[in-house]
Parts: sequence; structure tokens; C-alpha cells
Amino acid sequence: MIRPRIGITLGDPGGVGPEVTLKSLASLSSLPDARYILFGSQNVIENERNALNLDRSFLRDSISLHEIDCLPGPVERGRPTLPNGAVSFRYFERAVQEAQEGIIQAIVTAPVSKHSWDLAGIPWAGHTEYLSQFYPEAIMFFWAADLKVALFTHHLPLRQAIEKIKDKSLLEFILRLHANMNKIISHSFEFLVSGLNPHAGENGLMGSEEREQILPAIEKARLNGVPISGPFPPDVVFRHALNKPDKIVIALYHDQGLIPFKLQAFERGVNLTIGLPFVRTSPDHGTAFDIAGKGIADPTSMIEAIRLAHQFATAL
Amino acid sequence: MIRPRIGITLGDPGGVGPEVTLKSLASLSSLPDARYILFGSQNVIENERNALNLDRSFLRDSISLHEIDCLPGPVERGRPTLPNGAVSFRYFERAVQEAQEGIIQAIVTAPVSKHSWDLAGIPWAGHTEYLSQFYPEAIMFFWAADLKVALFTHHLPLRQAIEKIKDKSLLEFILRLHANMNKIISHSFEFLVSGLNPHAGENGLMGSEEREQILPAIEKARLNGVPISGPFPPDVVFRHALNKPDKIVIALYHDQGLIPFKLQAFERGVNLTIGLPFVRTSPDHGTAFDIAGKGIADPTSMIEAIRLAHQFATAL
Repeated sequence: MIRPRIGITLGDPGGVGPEVTLKSLASLSSLPDARYILFGSQNVIENERNALNLDRSFLRDSISLHEIDCLPGPVERGRPTLPNGAVSFRYFERAVQEAQEGIIQAIVTAPVSKHSWDLAGIPWAGHTEYLSQFYPEAIMFFWAADLKVALFTHHLPLRQAIEKIKDKSLLEFILRLHANMNKIISHSFEFLVSGLNPHAGENGLMGSEEREQILPAIEKARLNGVPISGPFPPDVVFRHALNKPDKIVIALYHDQGLIPFKLQAFERGVNLTIGLPFVRTSPDHGTAFDIAGKGIADPTSMIEAIRLAHQFATAL
Repeated sequence: MIRPRIGITLGDPGGVGPEVTLKSLASLSSLPDARYILFGSQNVIENERNALNLDRSFLRDSISLHEIDCLPGPVERGRPTLPNGAVSFRYFERAVQEAQEGIIQAIVTAPVSKHSWDLAGIPWAGHTEYLSQFYPEAIMFFWAADLKVALFTHHLPLRQAIEKIKDKSLLEFILRLHANMNKIISHSFEFLVSGLNPHAGENGLMGSEEREQILPAIEKARLNGVPISGPFPPDVVFRHALNKPDKIVIALYHDQGLIPFKLQAFERGVNLTIGLPFVRTSPDHGTAFDIAGKGIADPTSMIEAIRLAHQFATAL
């Protein structure tokens, strides 16, 4: 097993990104063996290191800083700002470049603010949207020990998300997801597909998408060798998958997957982007401007994101 | 405080209804002081009593049997049947009559099978649908100590449920819900309204219903004295309400409310119908034909349903 090179982007300097990053790296004994490259600014890190009372030695042999831009002026925290938007985008942009060049095998992204990005004139809504320009078939995946959920659609109005549920595109999605999961998971697994309507349509009494679109896609996927079942009633399928490491739920729209995931796995969950030529993970929380700089942010999700990035980077 | 009269319907004789009912009544020391009237058939009860090895004395002073129909022939379990559909409907129909006449103040309904009802030619899909003919403004409510959810719409295809989200009808729903909650809850409470779209529409970037329909309804409700806030992102609002006894989530469609409720409160949750002239509760599980007659059904949800019926019947 090679020792992977894992890039970590600091996120918005005004949020909890630098705090959870430094706390994660300071707890290095609990992190897997890898070479960690921090994409950030010296003054943001120093500022956070002082606030957290961390020794300078936390930057050890296995961790190096890839200084991108010095943040002009003092670090302003607790709200979206133009300078924080500009540097946090540059951290990420540079990490993506290095991943595309094969210099690093994985990127772990601390949270950015889409409002800071907007103030800085960055036209993307977030990490995933930026990556989608290069990799339009990327898949949003949410991963925790007790629940695993892949999203068929993500940032769309619900009406539009429903329109996207067609057997052909759902089948393509399933095949793509299956091929990618096969690359990163060595054990056997099964997909459980959620229905769209109450009780998964109750044999057509409460909606026709299950019979007309979803079931045909599942059956064709099975003929293609994909271990898959469904459609299950949406209020049942997540219980079926709970605490079953080999079950992966396919959710048809953003909140169908994220309502249960955030309820079940908040602060331990990892956001994973599947279908890139490199690994990308991120904690399942935002910038949390309201608690930025208070030293109380929980690094658990960030540590899990780093662990998962390591696991998949060594598998790829 | 008067001692309420609480009707309990046995449910489908082929499912776990008789089992969870008898287990609940046998644990009477943990049930609140009331007069319990069992709507069922002698042979179904005897059959279950023998299977569970319960002493005949479990039918004590405070519990009486309201024999409705003798089930013809032996009790067939584990699948939907015509005779089981016919008697389980009669148990419920008679209990509703007595509640409408004021003879009992509450009905607790063990689960019925809509397939058994269908075989018996009963045209309603379930308890709630039967009640809706008398009380079209009845509200489905899911109640647990750690999460409380009211459903704006229930058994509709998701596309149709979205069409129903109009400020006028949402406002009427909120005012009706508020008036009913005021009758049965003595402490203060607050409604948290979920949005429809990802991130509650993100200021119109991901859907317009929040701005055009939901927010206006919330604002008008607030002007009418309703303690209410929202719309919140759907994947955040349930966390806001979790373990907060005074927060009640208003979910806009069936699975938005039931995915988190069943994940969080399964086997402890109670299904409550609000807006009837009497109390009606039911456990949050179905007939569970697969485990019927095995003696392993968990009565916790049924016991909670009886407790809640008692609490609200004494408050009304």
C-alpha cells in the first residue's frame, strides 16, 4: 500500500474550517498514515493556532503547508466577506489542479461559504458545482458508519427533481454509481432504491413513477449485474439500511436523502463526491459562522472525512 | 378529572393487533387509570390469550369486552383474508359510532390491513380515510416524546401534494392545527414549518414555493397569534425540533414528515388524528403479517398510543 498524498483545503477563514482542520491534524495519532498537504494561508493558520493554543510543532513531518495566498489584513470571522471568499476559492482551485495533475490523490475540503464566494465574484455555488464543470457525472454521496446514501439529484427545486426521474437516466446513474463503488469498496454491497411517492406508490394508487420509471430502471440494472432492490416506501428504506454496512440507499432527491442522513449521522457524516478521477470528501456541516472563533467546533466529521479520503485513496 | 372511557379496537385478527392489544392490557399497571372497552371477538381474544399464555384474569374490572362479531371459523393469521377484513372493519365502525354518541371519549386502533378490507369489499384505505368522510378536516399527526410532526398532506402522489401547497389552504391548515393543539396541550408550544425545496429554496434560487406560498401563510398565521417560524430547510428543521417538547414540525408532504419520524421514533411513535370531536390514536406500525402469531411483537407503541389517548381524553 502506497502512502497517499492527501490535500486539505482550509475552507472559509471566517468559519469553523480552519479550526476543525487544525484540531484534526493536531490529533494526528488518530489519523491514518499519509502525507498531508494543507492548502491555506500562513496568517489564517497562525491566527487559529494561537486561538486554539496549539504548539507550532503540530505541523510535523507528515504535514506540510502549501501556501496559496496570504490573506490581506487580519482574519475577519463570523460572517461572509469578499477576501475570505477569494482565498477560500483559491485554496480549493489549487488543490483541484494538483489532484488533476496526480500530485495528490485526495482532497478533503473544509466548509466554504457560498455567500463569501458570491461577494468575491466566484460564480459557483460550492465545491460540488465547481467540480461539476469538469466532471458533470459526479455523484453526491453521504457516508457514515450507520447509514450510506447516494443522491440521484441534488440542488434542484423539487418539481424539477421529479421531472428528472426517467428510467433511462436513472439506469445510467445506477450503472455509474455501481462501477464507482466497485472501485472503492472491496466487500459486497447492495443498493436499496427509494420510491418517490407515499408507500412507493402503493401499486399505482398513489403515483405512477414507481411502475413507469423506477422499477424498469431497477430491473434493467439487475440484468446488468447490479445488486439492487426496490423501490421501497421512502419512510421504510432508511430503516432497512440503518446499521447495515453493506446497504446503500439511492435517494431520488436532495431532502429524501438528507433529512434522514442529517438526523441520523450529523457530526459524524461525510460528504463524498463519487465519479472523479481522485477522491474528494468533506465534513457534513457548513461554515457555522455563529460559533466561528469560539474554539467549540467539533472536528469529528472532519476527522471522519480525512479517514475516508485515506481509505478510498489507497483503494483506488 | 373524570375517568375516561377508552375504546380499543383489536385490529386485523391475522396481524399483530390482538397480540399488542392483549400485551398492553396485561401490563395494566403501566397503563393510566381509565375504563377500557375492547371492541373485538371472543374467539380472537381467546386464541391470542392462549397463544400468549395469559391468565383469563387479565380481563379485569377496568377492562370489558364489547363483543362485535364472532369471527366465523378458526383465526387465520399471517395474510390478508376476507373474514379478517370484515370483522376488523366492524370493530372500528362500532367504536366510531360509540365515540360519536359520546359513550367513549377516545379510540385506540390496533392496525388493520387495507388488503383485508379490500377483500371484504370495504371501500376505505384505512382508519383515517374512513374518518375523513365524517371529518374532512382531520389532521394526521405523529407524536413521540422526542419528535412531533403534523402532516399538511398525506396519502397523495408527491406531484399532487406539491400542487396543494397554496398560501390560503396552508394558512387554514395552520389555524385549524393551532386551535386543536390549544385544546389538548396545556403548555406553550411553537410550530416550525419545513420548506419544500432544498435549503428551503435558497432565496428563490432553488424553487419559488417558499417565497410565494409558504412564507405568506406563516406571516399571516403569526398575525393571527400563532407561535410559528419558518420555512426552514427540510434537512435542518427536524434536528431543530428533536428533543424539544415544545416544538412541532409542520411537514408539507407524507414522506417529508414520516422519513424522519419513523427513523427517530419507530416502535415508540404514536399516530394521532387531530380535529375530531373525540380522541383517536394508533400505534405507528402495521399488521406485520410476517411476525403475526409468533409472540414477538413489541407492544411499546400500542402502550404509548393508549397513554396518549388517556392524556388527551382527560384534557378535552
